[in-house]
Amino acid sequence: MANTDVVIDCLQYNNWDRALFQATRDSGVHTVHVTVSYWENMQETLLNISRWHRQFENHSDLIMQVRTAADVIEAKVSNRLGIVFGFQNCSPLNDDLGMVRILHELGVRFMQLSYNNQSSLATGCYEKNDPGITRFGEQVIREMNRVGMVIDMSHSAEQSTLEAMALSSRPIAITHANPVFFHPALRNKSTAVLQALASSGGMLGLSLYPFHLKNGSDCSLEQFCEMVAETVEVMGIDQVGIGSDLCQNWGYETLEWMRSGRWTFDADHGEGSVDNLNWPEQPGWFRNSQDMKNIAQGLKQQGFSIEDIAKVMGNNWLAFFQNSFESG
Amino acid sequence: MANTDVVIDCLQYNNWDRALFQATRDSGVHTVHVTVSYWENMQETLLNISRWHRQFENHSDLIMQVRTAADVIEAKVSNRLGIVFGFQNCSPLNDDLGMVRILHELGVRFMQLSYNNQSSLATGCYEKNDPGITRFGEQVIREMNRVGMVIDMSHSAEQSTLEAMALSSRPIAITHANPVFFHPALRNKSTAVLQALASSGGMLGLSLYPFHLKNGSDCSLEQFCEMVAETVEVMGIDQVGIGSDLCQNWGYETLEWMRSGRWTFDADHGEGSVDNLNWPEQPGWFRNSQDMKNIAQGLKQQGFSIEDIAKVMGNNWLAFFQNSFESG
Repeated sequence: MANTDVVIDCLQYNNWDRALFQATRDSGVHTVHVTVSYWENMQETLLNISRWHRQFENHSDLIMQVRTAADVIEAKVSNRLGIVFGFQNCSPLNDDLGMVRILHELGVRFMQLSYNNQSSLATGCYEKNDPGITRFGEQVIREMNRVGMVIDMSHSAEQSTLEAMALSSRPIAITHANPVFFHPALRNKSTAVLQALASSGGMLGLSLYPFHLKNGSDCSLEQFCEMVAETVEVMGIDQVGIGSDLCQNWGYETLEWMRSGRWTFDADHGEGSVDNLNWPEQPGWFRNSQDMKNIAQGLKQQGFSIEDIAKVMGNNWLAFFQNSFESG
Repeated sequence: MANTDVVIDCLQYNNWDRALFQATRDSGVHTVHVTVSYWENMQETLLNISRWHRQFENHSDLIMQVRTAADVIEAKVSNRLGIVFGFQNCSPLNDDLGMVRILHELGVRFMQLSYNNQSSLATGCYEKNDPGITRFGEQVIREMNRVGMVIDMSHSAEQSTLEAMALSSRPIAITHANPVFFHPALRNKSTAVLQALASSGGMLGLSLYPFHLKNGSDCSLEQFCEMVAETVEVMGIDQVGIGSDLCQNWGYETLEWMRSGRWTFDADHGEGSVDNLNWPEQPGWFRNSQDMKNIAQGLKQQGFSIEDIAKVMGNNWLAFFQNSFESG
């Protein structure tokens, strides 16, 4: 690994504690994009951010907040894990455009415009119809462009995703999803989306969540790395990274929260089913951040160059952060 | 007027003070549906409700809160103006289904699923596309049906409105809008919507807001009453009432709030235009609640029977309240 290389996982949602900070830092991952809000309103989101402030203070030897690309380097140099805040939904906005800048000032660097369902901004991947970006959505995209917050369309529907790219003056991201050609989940992305994403300078973070993988929990490292190679053929080597969607140390109730939030009193099974409610089992070769090394190894087997492996493992995300996090 | 007749205006948004309570009470209007929230979040909505509590306490000789149809009668008998709470949008929900019952317990009896823009529930009349009722929207409709809160689609788009009627187990309302055949505003309703509304037992409140009227501020009482007659031909005499959309005692900044909320930093002109920003001038024959009498007179000229005039002026709304406000 070159001195300037970084390893970035552009999506994890964990029940963090000191042991997990230490294990992740020691794994060689330099920065993780963490989820601060799904369905939380603003007050609850501020509480989550405040809890992160306690974590930064209590574990300042292990972690630091990342607000800029330079912070990723500082995290690596100081042997700490960098933490980037992101939202998987727009619930904290609550119809208020002014909240975008406030959240950016608090360090939020990614926001999904919708999460599975229709939001006031865009459509989620499980709705029956997708009308594209809304009137409020256009305003929010413009403001996110201005302040330097990345538009993330991981859980959004196709037309909304294409329109977000067309409306955004900056490249957008799909932080955690796989191509539909690999596994035809509603959450995965069509080749048309991947091509538009790449040609606009956007990034795809490839997911290790079993519901996004061919053969689910039985997906092999080789199959995954073949998919990486095919995705690079579609998107180019500079637009692909990892967004593992690792969810560690949670019970079932957290999965239920992610899926059902407060929008239904019934259980929504999301990518699961009534017979398969719980967290899916991770493939044996990707159980935690330490296993990022297996992906690098698998890409080597697949014939990737050292330089290209470094791009996929984090350098591409770093370049994207450089262009995305500062006010425009 | 028969002893059991009531006069109901099913939409006013006023800057209320004692003088206006007194004038409205003295006008012979027995109950008004007032707007408590447009873009307000929950905390702000609770503040608005709390301000109404102060009004009820300070002016208990003039006004009372209406939570049931029986309260309308009590208001009339006790010579007070009844006040029904309603929302023109769903901002206070903030992705939380549980708020529906809480708001019903606080007296909210009408909620629009969307206001001009796309919401997380339904599409507004100014969006370019209308995908219909969302996944969350279906849940909210079911819960509103259960607790006894009326689905109001006054500012919603066509497909969403038709789907709301189909999904709702109770009749819905369009509290303030006119037929497109009268004036082709985006906010007015197609004959298809009016027919579906009538056949499902729903109510249309006819609007006196100039942007909803043929010839705007120059609309004549006769033209308006002809429209009432034509609407009754389409919908039947039992499904039509008044929702005047009277907005009294406000400055321009309130109109700007209604139109732009916090969803845009630019001014949105809504039904106005850059050359015609301000409140439109009311027709001379309908400037305030006292002028409800002019409508009754105009309907008489139009050949309506005494009984039918009483239905349009309030008895239809009373019957609708009877079937709508109690838990199902």
